[in-house]
Amino acid sequence: MHSKRPLILVTNDDGMFAPGIRRLVAIASEMGEVIVVAPNSPQSAKGHAITMEDPIRLHKVDAFKGIEAYECSGTPVDCVKLAKNVLLKNRKIDLCVSGINHGSNSSISILYSGTISAAMEAAIEGINSIGFSLDDYSMDADFDPATPWVRSIMQYVLINGIEYSKLLNVNIPHSKNSPIKGTLVCRQSEGRWEEEFMEGLDPRGQKFYWLTGKFVTNDAGPGTDIYALRDGYISIVPSLHDLTSHQAIPGLKSMELLNPHA
Amino acid sequence: MHSKRPLILVTNDDGMFAPGIRRLVAIASEMGEVIVVAPNSPQSAKGHAITMEDPIRLHKVDAFKGIEAYECSGTPVDCVKLAKNVLLKNRKIDLCVSGINHGSNSSISILYSGTISAAMEAAIEGINSIGFSLDDYSMDADFDPATPWVRSIMQYVLINGIEYSKLLNVNIPHSKNSPIKGTLVCRQSEGRWEEEFMEGLDPRGQKFYWLTGKFVTNDAGPGTDIYALRDGYISIVPSLHDLTSHQAIPGLKSMELLNPHA
Repeated sequence: MHSKRPLILVTNDDGMFAPGIRRLVAIASEMGEVIVVAPNSPQSAKGHAITMEDPIRLHKVDAFKGIEAYECSGTPVDCVKLAKNVLLKNRKIDLCVSGINHGSNSSISILYSGTISAAMEAAIEGINSIGFSLDDYSMDADFDPATPWVRSIMQYVLINGIEYSKLLNVNIPHSKNSPIKGTLVCRQSEGRWEEEFMEGLDPRGQKFYWLTGKFVTNDAGPGTDIYALRDGYISIVPSLHDLTSHQAIPGLKSMELLNPHA
Repeated sequence: MHSKRPLILVTNDDGMFAPGIRRLVAIASEMGEVIVVAPNSPQSAKGHAITMEDPIRLHKVDAFKGIEAYECSGTPVDCVKLAKNVLLKNRKIDLCVSGINHGSNSSISILYSGTISAAMEAAIEGINSIGFSLDDYSMDADFDPATPWVRSIMQYVLINGIEYSKLLNVNIPHSKNSPIKGTLVCRQSEGRWEEEFMEGLDPRGQKFYWLTGKFVTNDAGPGTDIYALRDGYISIVPSLHDLTSHQAIPGLKSMELLNPHA
């Protein structure tokens, strides 16, 4: 007999034993049938990478009591592709949730994040998806204050869907010193990572560069995700995989007159 | 004395010896001072991945007569970060061009493509950028018909910039049987890759999955990049790194009433 409970796919970029995904699985299993597919190695900052040059492995693991779970040797996006096409054989997935990431994925981090890219892959497939991140990089991060909010947001999307978007990028403030004030529906703040590469010499005297850097933004006013987080609110940014700048099209129409053979 | 010629950064995802980048370097060097930073291994479909867990290497190579060129052990996005921050020490880059990719990056492929992600990284840094792709996967692809068009598009952007965008995703049709008709400024077609994983057993009897699939779209009408390419035109999609669905925000405002503690 077919279950009426919603089918929820859970993934992340930190792997099966990160406390963030364990919390997300616990919440999801209260409200539906859950399948978990997560990378078997750290896949932070893998963006929308997929594995084309190599085979991918899936290993069924007993990570969560009574819940089907698989470790995948690929990227977060590979996890979603394999879940949908191989494991679920294109059964309808009602919701995909990714995270809870240890560390914020607000502003431009949406593009680098494996967590959000996994959710976006589900969105491309027409599945309502939510990427959750907690603004605390620690593996000891306290997910308790976030938990009821994550539950509410998932329930909202299961009931209402997401019009004009399939993906919510949800960032939860570090709530060590003050309680979460609520949620704000925002736009992605314009910002960037200002890089400073650590330079050094390896044991064989060869030069290396190691990525470091800090996030910088001049766009942290009301209405942005950065503003919400700094003010103690959960930021919710409805996001798209259509990257077209529709506003730019009219001004570029003169390019259609280019004729290098004239 | 400071040179008045524009500074052009050239990169790709196929490495320094792909015919596509060699053609792009030749065109760029006609119009400006050129620096080339490209991956030392195939980096197709790496999306916006960056290398955080490992050091990155740069090797100066003598790949192009009289042109500074470096192989990088990282991803296409890493190449742009190292070029800007380490090699050019934040000198103003007037244009970043990535490609010419062997194979189309139209529609949703913009998200998976290392070629376009490299250009988008430059766009995030405020640099006008163009990702070029030829709709021909062959390493023997003929870049001659594309060449004058690539030159014109680069000159246009150097002179006019790109209002409301910093990134053009340019796809060039396979022109074996008919000449390129012109350029069309388009939006990104809605489409997706329909996956069918090849399944097999490795030499040790362990199961593997290998990504394959075909591109599918129901959105190939006038105004889309797919339409332009199929009709023999070069598609030019002005693109953004702001993924917000601004249209979705009003309808989601009711989420701000969520209160799990009520």
